[in-house]
Amino acid sequence: MTINKAAAIGGGVIGAGWVARLVLNGIDVAIFDPDPEASRKVGEVMKGARRAYKQMLPGGLPKEGRITYAKTIAAAVADADFIQESVPERLDLKHKVLAEIDLHAPANAIVGSSTSGIKPTDMQVAMKRHPERLVVGHPFNPVYLLPLVEIVGGEQTFPEAIEVAKEIYASIGMKPVVIRKEIEAFVGDRLLEAAWREALWLVKDGITTVEELDDIMRYSFGLRWAQMGMFQVYRIAGGEAGMRHFMAQFGPALKWPWTKLMDVPEFNDELVDLIATQSDEQAGDLSIRELERIRDDNLVAIMDVLSKTNKGKGWGAGALYKDYTRQLAKLAVKKKKKPTSKAAEKAKPAKKAKPAKSKKKAAGKKKG
Amino acid sequence: MTINKAAAIGGGVIGAGWVARLVLNGIDVAIFDPDPEASRKVGEVMKGARRAYKQMLPGGLPKEGRITYAKTIAAAVADADFIQESVPERLDLKHKVLAEIDLHAPANAIVGSSTSGIKPTDMQVAMKRHPERLVVGHPFNPVYLLPLVEIVGGEQTFPEAIEVAKEIYASIGMKPVVIRKEIEAFVGDRLLEAAWREALWLVKDGITTVEELDDIMRYSFGLRWAQMGMFQVYRIAGGEAGMRHFMAQFGPALKWPWTKLMDVPEFNDELVDLIATQSDEQAGDLSIRELERIRDDNLVAIMDVLSKTNKGKGWGAGALYKDYTRQLAKLAVKKKKKPTSKAAEKAKPAKKAKPAKSKKKAAGKKKG
Repeated sequence: MTINKAAAIGGGVIGAGWVARLVLNGIDVAIFDPDPEASRKVGEVMKGARRAYKQMLPGGLPKEGRITYAKTIAAAVADADFIQESVPERLDLKHKVLAEIDLHAPANAIVGSSTSGIKPTDMQVAMKRHPERLVVGHPFNPVYLLPLVEIVGGEQTFPEAIEVAKEIYASIGMKPVVIRKEIEAFVGDRLLEAAWREALWLVKDGITTVEELDDIMRYSFGLRWAQMGMFQVYRIAGGEAGMRHFMAQFGPALKWPWTKLMDVPEFNDELVDLIATQSDEQAGDLSIRELERIRDDNLVAIMDVLSKTNKGKGWGAGALYKDYTRQLAKLAVKKKKKPTSKAAEKAKPAKKAKPAKSKKKAAGKKKG
Repeated sequence: MTINKAAAIGGGVIGAGWVARLVLNGIDVAIFDPDPEASRKVGEVMKGARRAYKQMLPGGLPKEGRITYAKTIAAAVADADFIQESVPERLDLKHKVLAEIDLHAPANAIVGSSTSGIKPTDMQVAMKRHPERLVVGHPFNPVYLLPLVEIVGGEQTFPEAIEVAKEIYASIGMKPVVIRKEIEAFVGDRLLEAAWREALWLVKDGITTVEELDDIMRYSFGLRWAQMGMFQVYRIAGGEAGMRHFMAQFGPALKWPWTKLMDVPEFNDELVDLIATQSDEQAGDLSIRELERIRDDNLVAIMDVLSKTNKGKGWGAGALYKDYTRQLAKLAVKKKKKPTSKAAEKAKPAKKAKPAKSKKKAAGKKKG
C-alpha cells in the first residue's frame, strides 16, 4: 500500500522528520501541532532534508507534497490514510491524542506512533473505535535519512495492520523491522540505553571524556556497525568455525564484566553539568546546524558508497538506498513529464487520490 | 617515533592483524607463535589485508616489510624497538610471556599488549627489568583497517612510555586514545559488553532474532556512529539548546529502563545453540571469508568516502584515512624510485636502521 494523504500529529524533531520524508516522496501532509513556532521549526527541518535529498538525487527531486497546518487533530486526520503520531512521551497525552485521532480518522487509516518506549497495548486502550490499526512505528533521527523503523503491535493490533504498516513504511524508503514481542523501549533503544548507561558511568568516573568516548566509538565499532550488526561481526571474529566457536571462546570471558557496572549513576545536576560542559568543548565552534549538516552529508555519503559495494549490488543500508533513490528518481522523471505551465496546472481538477495499485485493505476495514 | 623493527608475540586474528598493518607500512616483523599453523593463518590475514590496502592505494603499495618466524620469544624481540603482545587472555600466560619479552627486548623497546580487558598494572608485575615501558594498546578487529587503539598505562608505566606509544601507533595510521584511569575492559569493550549483554537478553527472550537485531543496528545508529559518537549525536538531537537541553529532556525519561534488564542471562548450551543457529541462518551461503571481504570492502569504502566530506577536509575516521593513505602513497613512491633489479638489491648492505627522525627516547631509557 502507498500513501495518498498523510497526517503528522506533532511537529518536533521527529514529527518534522516524518513530514520531510513524506513530502519529499511527493505526499501531501497535514500537520497538527499547537506550538505557534511549529511552522518555522518544520521549515528548518525541511531545509536540511531538502539539502540532503539534493545530494542523493543530483538529477532532481520529485515534486514535493503539500504541507498544510491544521487547527485541530480532527481536521488534520479527516482524509488521511496514514497518520503518524509524534507527541511527547507521556502516556496521558498519548491517550488524549490517539483517542482524537481514532475518532476522526477514516476507519481504514493506519495509525503509527513514534514512541520510543511506550507499549502499543498501553496506548491503544484509548482508541475506542479502531484500536486494531495502531502500530508503533519507531524511527531514528534524522527520520528523513535513517531507514530503520521498528514496528510493534499491541494486544489489540491486527496482524493485517502490521502488514500494511510494513508496506507503508517501505514505500517511503524505510527498512521496517517487526519486533516479535512487545516490550518497553523495544530493541534499538534497549541497546542504546545499555550503551548510554555505561557511557555515563565512564564519564562520571573520569575514565574518559565525552569527546574521547565518541572517538572510541567512531574510530572502531561504529565503522563496523554501519554495515554489519554485532552478531555478524562476532561471527567473523570467530573465524572459520563461526558463531559457535566465538560463543565458546568468548562467552565465559565475557562473563566477568557482566557482574560490574550494573548500577545506575545518579542523574543529578553535577552529572548534567559535567557532560554538557564537555560536550560544548567537543563541539568547538560548530553550531548545532553545522553539526547537523555534517552529519547529514556523512550519512548520505556512507549510504551512497554502500550502495556500490558487494560487487555493485549494494550492502545493507546501501542496497536499500539504491532502490530508494531509483524510486525517487522515477518520481522525479514523472514530474518533469507533466505540463509545467501554471495555467495548465490551474486548469486541472483538484488533486485526485492516486489509483490504488495495491490491495487497499487496511486493518480497520477487517473489523468494520 | 617510528618503528624500525617490530615483534609480534602471538599470531592469532589480532596478532596477525598487527603484523599485516606493520608489514604493509614497510616494517619488518618477527613473529613468535607456537602454533604450527601460525604461518598459514598469518598468510590468510595478510591476503585479506593486502586486498584491502590495494583498494586504499590504487597507485600501488609500499614495499612490504619482511615477516620472519622466530623459534623463541627471545629471538623475536632481540632487536625490536616495538613489541606487540597478543596472546590469549589469561593472566598467567600474559605474565609468562611478558617476563620473557622484558628479559630479552632492548631496554628502550616499547611493549604494547593487545589485551581487551586485563589491567596493565596486573600484567607489568611480571616484568622485572623495565615494567615502565608496558602499555595496553588495545586494537579492534580488523586491526589492519580499524584505526582505534586504546592506550592504557599501569601504575608503573612512565608517562613518557604513553607518549612514545601514541607516536608509534599514530605512525602506522592509527587513532590512539589514552584512557585516563585504568579499569578492566577499558572503554570500548565496556560499551560493547553493555550492548552485547542486552542483545543476548533480547534474543534469548524471543523479542528479536540475531538477524533482525543486526538490521536494527545497521539501518539506524550504526550509520550514525560511523561518523559521530553518541554524545555528539545526542547534542544534535537536543536541538539549538544542545546537550544541556537533551539531558534535561531525556535524562529522567531514560531513567526507567535503567532499572531493567540489569540481570545476566545464563550462559548455557541452550543460549549458544539459539544464537549460533540463528547466526548460520543469517549468513546464508556466505562463508566467513566472503563475509570478511564484504566487511573489509565496506570499511574501506566508508572511510574513503568520509575522507571527502566536511568540505573536502574529511571527517573523523575519514580525515585520518586521508592522511594515512597519503603517507602510504609517499612510501610507495619511494619504493618505485629505488633500484629494482635483484642484483642491485643484493649488492646493497644489510638493511640499516632508518635515521631516527624524532626523539628516540623510549621510557626504558629514562629509568635505565
